[in-house]
Amino acid sequence: MSDLDPRSVGAAVAQRAGFLEPLILKAGKTLASYELVYETYGKLNADRSNAILVCHALSGSHHVAGFYADDPKKVGWWDNLIGPGKAIDTDRFFVIGVNNIGGCHGSTGPASIDRATGKPYGAAFPVVTVEDWVVSQARLMDRLGITKLAGAIGGSLGGMQALQWTLTFPDRIGHAFVIAAAPRLSTQNIAFNDVARQAIVSDPDFHGGNFYAHKAVPARGLKLARMLGHITYLSEDMLMEKFGRVLKRSELGFNYDVEFEIESYLRYQGDKFAQVFDANTYLLMTKALDYFDPAKESGGNLARALSAARAGFFVASFKSDWRFPPQRSRELVKALVASKKAVTYAEIDAPHGHDAFLLDDARYHQLIAAYVDNIATEIGVGDRAAPLQLAKGEIEEMSAYASERGGA
Amino acid sequence: MSDLDPRSVGAAVAQRAGFLEPLILKAGKTLASYELVYETYGKLNADRSNAILVCHALSGSHHVAGFYADDPKKVGWWDNLIGPGKAIDTDRFFVIGVNNIGGCHGSTGPASIDRATGKPYGAAFPVVTVEDWVVSQARLMDRLGITKLAGAIGGSLGGMQALQWTLTFPDRIGHAFVIAAAPRLSTQNIAFNDVARQAIVSDPDFHGGNFYAHKAVPARGLKLARMLGHITYLSEDMLMEKFGRVLKRSELGFNYDVEFEIESYLRYQGDKFAQVFDANTYLLMTKALDYFDPAKESGGNLARALSAARAGFFVASFKSDWRFPPQRSRELVKALVASKKAVTYAEIDAPHGHDAFLLDDARYHQLIAAYVDNIATEIGVGDRAAPLQLAKGEIEEMSAYASERGGA
Repeated sequence: MSDLDPRSVGAAVAQRAGFLEPLILKAGKTLASYELVYETYGKLNADRSNAILVCHALSGSHHVAGFYADDPKKVGWWDNLIGPGKAIDTDRFFVIGVNNIGGCHGSTGPASIDRATGKPYGAAFPVVTVEDWVVSQARLMDRLGITKLAGAIGGSLGGMQALQWTLTFPDRIGHAFVIAAAPRLSTQNIAFNDVARQAIVSDPDFHGGNFYAHKAVPARGLKLARMLGHITYLSEDMLMEKFGRVLKRSELGFNYDVEFEIESYLRYQGDKFAQVFDANTYLLMTKALDYFDPAKESGGNLARALSAARAGFFVASFKSDWRFPPQRSRELVKALVASKKAVTYAEIDAPHGHDAFLLDDARYHQLIAAYVDNIATEIGVGDRAAPLQLAKGEIEEMSAYASERGGA
Repeated sequence: MSDLDPRSVGAAVAQRAGFLEPLILKAGKTLASYELVYETYGKLNADRSNAILVCHALSGSHHVAGFYADDPKKVGWWDNLIGPGKAIDTDRFFVIGVNNIGGCHGSTGPASIDRATGKPYGAAFPVVTVEDWVVSQARLMDRLGITKLAGAIGGSLGGMQALQWTLTFPDRIGHAFVIAAAPRLSTQNIAFNDVARQAIVSDPDFHGGNFYAHKAVPARGLKLARMLGHITYLSEDMLMEKFGRVLKRSELGFNYDVEFEIESYLRYQGDKFAQVFDANTYLLMTKALDYFDPAKESGGNLARALSAARAGFFVASFKSDWRFPPQRSRELVKALVASKKAVTYAEIDAPHGHDAFLLDDARYHQLIAAYVDNIATEIGVGDRAAPLQLAKGEIEEMSAYASERGGA
C-alpha cells in the first residue's frame, strides 16, 4: 500500500545514536552507555524549530511512518497520521520516531549485550520510567541540534511521555499531544498489568529474566499477556460487532480447542506477538505505565504538579476506550485548566476502544491537523501546500491491526 | 460468626446421592453413573411444594448456608441470604444446594475416579452444559420427592441454570431468580474466559488435563485465571476505593516483586484458589458459560426461545457490574416481556461490581424477600414468623470475600 501512497514519507531508514554519558535512572541505577535507534521524516528547518517527537506506547517502535525499502509491507505504526499533506505534515515538520530505552526494536534493552559482562542484560536491565525516557529523548534532540521541540505526540504510554516532556523540560517543548492517556493508572489498570507480568514471570521458560542464556523464550506467558492486553484495547461493542459468537466450525466441539472466532483471533495475535516481542521489555513497559504519576510528589495535586509546564496541550480521548476512558483525560484537562494552561480537548465518539488512537478516523485526524496548523503558524513554517487530505472517514483497517503495529 | 447467629440454619451436613441411570450429555457423551453432593436447609412441607433450589456459579458449591460442625468458619456462600427469618426464609422454605456435575466439591467431576478405568477422569471428563446440569438437578429433585420447585435461584452462571429450568422443565418450576446473569455471553466475556483457559492448558503442569496421574497441579495457570477473573468481578471504582495506588512499602521497588496493594491482594487470592480448586473444573465451568445461549435454536430470537416457560421471573442486575452489566439483564427482561411472561426486574445501584450478587445489601435482599413472600402466599406456607431482619445496610464484607466463597 504505502509504496504507492503519494502521501507516504517513502522509504524510511533507521539510524542509531550512541551515548557514552551515563544515564542516571529514577531507579537509582545507572546505564553506563546506551544506543537509541530512531527515524526522521521531513526536514529540519533553518532555525531548527519544526521538530515533532513521536513517543511510542507499550509495543511500538521508532518506525512511525513510511516503509522499509527491503520490506515494503512494514509500514510505520502511525503512517496514517504522518506524511506529506497528512495531519502531521512532513512537508513542513521534521518528525522523529525513537525506540525507547528498554525496548526491543534496536535501542539498548534487556536483550542487548551489556558491555560490562559481554552477555545480554536480561534480569540485570534496570526498570526505566517515563521520566528516564524523556531525559534520553532530550539527549537525542541535543544530538540532532534541536533545542526546543515544536511538539511531542503520543497515545497511551506515549501520551504520558509527551506530558512528561512539559514537566521535565518546560522550556524545550512548545506543545504536547496527550492522546488516549491518563495522568496515572487506575487500580484496575495496574491489576491487568500485574496479571500480564505474572503470566510472563511464572512461565518456566522465563528463567528469572535470563532466558536468553537458556536459548528459551517465555512464549506462553507473553502470549497470555498479549491476549489479555488485546481485550482491553478493544471496546466490548467492537468485539461483538467483529466477532460476535461466531464459531470457527458449524458445530460446538465440546473440547478446549479453538472454537469461537474470537478465540482464534486472540490466540493467533498472542502467538505472533510472542515470536517477536521481548518478555523483559513487556515487563518493563508495564512497570513504566504503573509508575507514571506526575502528581505524586505534589501529594496527588495534579494541577500543582502541572504548574511548571509552559507548553500548549492537545488532549484527546475516545468514548469507547475503557482502558483509559475519557474521564481519565478529563482529569488531566481539569488540572490543566486549574493550572491556567492552554488546553484543547477533544472527546471523540469512535467505536474502537483504546486502539482508536492508532486508527484512521477523519474527525480525529482533522483535529490534530488543525492544531498542527496552528503550530505551523506560530513557528512560521507556512500553510499546507494542499488542503488536508483525510481518509475517507471509514475505518477499513481492523482495530487489532492497529494494535499489532503500535500497541498500547 | 455463624454459630452465634440466631438466623443461621446451623450446622449443615453434606449428603450424597448416587445415580446409576446414565446421563446423556449435550456433548453427545454419556456419564454412565454419577454422584451429586448436596445440602438442605429447612423442612419440606407435606405437599412438597416449598422447595427452592440454589444453583451455584463458577467456583461455588453445595455449601450454601450454615456452617460445618467441625469447621465453623466454613460458612455457606449465600448464608447472608438464606436462613430462618432471612430473605429466603428456611422457616417456611426447604432450600437445596447442590454441587454441579464436573465440580470439585464432591459431586462427580474430572478428579473423580472413573469406574471404567479405576483412575481419575482427567481429560476424559466430558464438557457439561447448563442444560445437562438442570437435568441432573431434576433427577435429584425426583430423589427428594419434589415434583415441582417453588423456585430456583442463582447468580451469574447460577442464574443461567435457574433460567434454563424454566425452559427444560416448564412444569416443574414456579419461579426463577436470575441474578447478575446474561442470556448469553458477549464476545468480551468469551475472550476473558479463553485467556483463563489458555493460562491453564499452557501450564506445563496441566499435562493435557491428566495432571492427577503426574501428582502435579497447574497452579500457575489456575492462579492467573483466578487473578484475571477477580478483576472482572469487581468494579473499577471499588478497586480504586479499596486499593487505590497504595504501595506495600513506602518506596517504589523498581523490580517485579509485589509492589502495589492490589498486586498483593490478587496474587494472594490466586495462590489460595490454585491450592483448592480443580483446573479441569475451571475449564469446564467457563465452557458452560460460553455455550449457554438459549436463543440459539430460535435463530437468536430470545423471546421465542422463552415462550415455553411458565414460571414467574425475578431478574436483578447491579449497576456497577461490568461482567454482566444491567444491559444484559434488560435483554432478558425485554424478551420475557415480549413473550408475555410475568417478570419483576430490579437494577440495584450497588458499587461492588459483579460480586454484589453475593453481598449483604439490604435493598437487594429486601427485594428478594418480598418476592419470596409472594411465593409463600401463592403456595400457602404462611407469613414470616417475624418481620424480615435485614443487614444493617452497610456492607462490611470485602467484595472479594464474596468471590472467595461463591465466585462468579
